[in-house]
Amino acid sequence: MAALRHGAALRPLSSASKQIPRVSASRLPFSRNFTASSTRMASSFLPGEPEGPSVKTEIPGPESKQYIAKLDQVFDTRSLNMLADYTKSVGNYIIDPDGNALLDVYAQIASIPVGYNNPALKKAAESPEMVTAIINRPALGNFPSHDWADILETGVLKVAPKGLNQVFTGMAGSDANETAFKAAFMYRRQRERGGPAVEFTEEELSSSMLNQTPGASDLSILSFKSAFHGRLFGTLSTTRSKPIHKLDIPAFDWPHATFPQLKYPLAEHEAENAQAEADSLAEVEHLIKNYHVPPAAVIVEPVQSEGGDNHASPAFFRGLRALTKKHGVLLIVDEVQTGVGATGKFWAHDHWDLPEPPDMVTFSKKAQTAGYYYGDPALRPNKPYRQFNTWMGDPARAILFRAIIDEIQRHDLVANTARVGDYLYSKLEGLSKKYPGQFENLRGKGQGTFIAFDNPKRDEFLKKAKKFGVNIGGSGESAVRLRPMLIFEKHHADILLGALEKVVSS
Amino acid sequence: MAALRHGAALRPLSSASKQIPRVSASRLPFSRNFTASSTRMASSFLPGEPEGPSVKTEIPGPESKQYIAKLDQVFDTRSLNMLADYTKSVGNYIIDPDGNALLDVYAQIASIPVGYNNPALKKAAESPEMVTAIINRPALGNFPSHDWADILETGVLKVAPKGLNQVFTGMAGSDANETAFKAAFMYRRQRERGGPAVEFTEEELSSSMLNQTPGASDLSILSFKSAFHGRLFGTLSTTRSKPIHKLDIPAFDWPHATFPQLKYPLAEHEAENAQAEADSLAEVEHLIKNYHVPPAAVIVEPVQSEGGDNHASPAFFRGLRALTKKHGVLLIVDEVQTGVGATGKFWAHDHWDLPEPPDMVTFSKKAQTAGYYYGDPALRPNKPYRQFNTWMGDPARAILFRAIIDEIQRHDLVANTARVGDYLYSKLEGLSKKYPGQFENLRGKGQGTFIAFDNPKRDEFLKKAKKFGVNIGGSGESAVRLRPMLIFEKHHADILLGALEKVVSS
Repeated sequence: MAALRHGAALRPLSSASKQIPRVSASRLPFSRNFTASSTRMASSFLPGEPEGPSVKTEIPGPESKQYIAKLDQVFDTRSLNMLADYTKSVGNYIIDPDGNALLDVYAQIASIPVGYNNPALKKAAESPEMVTAIINRPALGNFPSHDWADILETGVLKVAPKGLNQVFTGMAGSDANETAFKAAFMYRRQRERGGPAVEFTEEELSSSMLNQTPGASDLSILSFKSAFHGRLFGTLSTTRSKPIHKLDIPAFDWPHATFPQLKYPLAEHEAENAQAEADSLAEVEHLIKNYHVPPAAVIVEPVQSEGGDNHASPAFFRGLRALTKKHGVLLIVDEVQTGVGATGKFWAHDHWDLPEPPDMVTFSKKAQTAGYYYGDPALRPNKPYRQFNTWMGDPARAILFRAIIDEIQRHDLVANTARVGDYLYSKLEGLSKKYPGQFENLRGKGQGTFIAFDNPKRDEFLKKAKKFGVNIGGSGESAVRLRPMLIFEKHHADILLGALEKVVSS
Repeated sequence: MAALRHGAALRPLSSASKQIPRVSASRLPFSRNFTASSTRMASSFLPGEPEGPSVKTEIPGPESKQYIAKLDQVFDTRSLNMLADYTKSVGNYIIDPDGNALLDVYAQIASIPVGYNNPALKKAAESPEMVTAIINRPALGNFPSHDWADILETGVLKVAPKGLNQVFTGMAGSDANETAFKAAFMYRRQRERGGPAVEFTEEELSSSMLNQTPGASDLSILSFKSAFHGRLFGTLSTTRSKPIHKLDIPAFDWPHATFPQLKYPLAEHEAENAQAEADSLAEVEHLIKNYHVPPAAVIVEPVQSEGGDNHASPAFFRGLRALTKKHGVLLIVDEVQTGVGATGKFWAHDHWDLPEPPDMVTFSKKAQTAGYYYGDPALRPNKPYRQFNTWMGDPARAILFRAIIDEIQRHDLVANTARVGDYLYSKLEGLSKKYPGQFENLRGKGQGTFIAFDNPKRDEFLKKAKKFGVNIGGSGESAVRLRPMLIFEKHHADILLGALEKVVSS
């Protein structure tokens, strides 16, 4: 395990690498298989990472403070966590202008997949294809490029969830979810109308222009308490994380059900937890049948992330799939934060063993692009221009996602995340026993590195962690959520564990 | 004037260039001034443009059809206009896989500013700074880069509208407008509450989580008939362009006023038009005072673009500014389509000579990034994380906007657009007299190349235009809208005019 040193100068390679040559992962053959490597010496998928964190100044330090003061004059900086120098950041390490290098297990709110300055992504970013995509941005719905199908098929669609083979591309998580909502509303009304061939009535046409029914549908999206699906007006109406996200913003009268509040350790609360999940499903069914603004779809996160890392069992989600099917309501799985490998499966809903796929799966963050996958052709609206906008995504970001997918497959990073996650979880179990009350409700077992726990002084905990060289995020009221990148390895886990122990014992 | 030839092979330089050496603009000194150049020979800001359009096959041709069939399997192609090969497209010309080269006066729905494969943008796209921005995308609200202030100040903010010196960055026009709406709602409620220091009540906190008042405000955004502000749930509630954009999507009960419907030629309808504008302002005032969901802001486009290129006079907009000030309602100017030079001013509202700036100006499209400008510090919400999302824009696209701004300034392209627009408008006046009924309600005089006219068989007109080598867009019910790039010059205008005449005379 690399030592955690305060004030130590950054060294480009660890001392271990001087004894046992560290092989740059980018020079390894395609098929390198790390599956049996849990006992190997520390090495990194990315070359050039520091041996460990290095904290030289308070954070922000004097250099950072100057940049922040300048930025604040033109850009609201009150949610600023730390300033970074991305030309220096590398792999799992975020490095600031004062030379502080932190092990980053927050990773831009879970959106950096394969490390800062990943050489494979750099190669993709420098490619003529990327340059063309950057400078000649098309309106994809009207004037797609001749290679757009190819970019999709070798990238975004190569990792399409099982059963879903189509995509509508977007810009970020919020609009991925909002366009999925729109697809759900159009699908539902089309079915009620009697199919795609039935024309809109005059009353529908005219009332739609007045924002009134029947043209503007009186339908809803059902979400869960503590859910987070975005901050634009439709998604914010389904977001139920914290008042600060919602205050003062007009909202739709849409329903929400209680998300199961599981008790930990799971093994000690089996009956209670099963009951909580049954109650939640019953509430969902009640709302679908009775809510005065009928739901066209249910949206759910595999793990409620912003809401505090709330998990439910695969059986719960299978129940939700069965329920929505039974009542002809669509199921949208929001994989914006859970998707792209962090849970030890490429998509978190792969853990559920669903007999039928979700109707739509939304994605963004680690994909660096966004959109929703779907399979049923009826989810394409009956006429063109109903689901449309100028850019409809960004080929440049789709090309980057393709490079990310290649990098994940080349290094088998989903398996890495599963393996390192198991290791990290088992060690955290040890810490939770050693420090009662400090690592409460440890959760995410078998979910890769998608691990969280509660700490009674969470905000202080996160601040202290920076002093010990680790950048960690919180969520919900008291959760410490771990969101390492997919290139997070056992020796990084050891650094993190050492820092966490220092936080609670200092 | 370059001849319009069907079936002619593309030639990289015009025959004229063999007689009079064509100087590549990119090799000209920085200060080259085209202001007095209206009589010069045809030349292009960009090197390598074809002499004129070249239509070799029907559009889409056999090659394009194969690509479209492949794309349609995974991506809805029913709104596809034409497929393009962006590696071959250059300057004002969009070129397809069948080798058809069309003069592009639609320009990706008005979003290409300085031409396909512009060498200066290519240089920016290949820069190490861009590569870093592409592969290390930050969560700007939490972890901005040390150079983010510098990127803003030398780019986005260098062209900030007069009186507005702050920016909130976003991804596209829709979310630029939606975040501006959120800022307006928070601002209004803060004022009603008694200022930023007044804490939220328990009732506000708890009701916000239920999407109910008083936590979720019962306020609205006032827009205009025929307006287009986007297609997400908040913006779609302000969009009043066509039913097809709105059908089946739930909408907020927000008000809209009649946009003045000016009659042309303006000089012949002065009194009527002044009355229409006065009536519209009176309706706005009535709605502000009486609508049962009070408006926190009015949003308006300088020219209603998607709605059919509807103009109003500077006096109307000054009246709107005065009215909104009088009633303490914010004025949001949506410059998503009008901004960045196309109207012969950098911002279209620069034409209005406002005594006080708008409260917010939204931008996207030709900026290739998005956001809203503001000036009043009170438009920053009273607490962090109220106006926030993971990415909050994209430094890569902000770097590109900076390069676009540099290119505009280097070639004085706003002046070019004003000059070429005047030329184009005067020639179109001639055509409208020569072909009665074909170029109806010609509008956009003095508005750069932001020119439109109505044609009774508009859709057929646009299809025919392709056959004659020009890619043009429509809007509203019958408008042909011209949206050339800023590098559109007199010789391009002549090609366009020739094609338009063929369309109506063939």
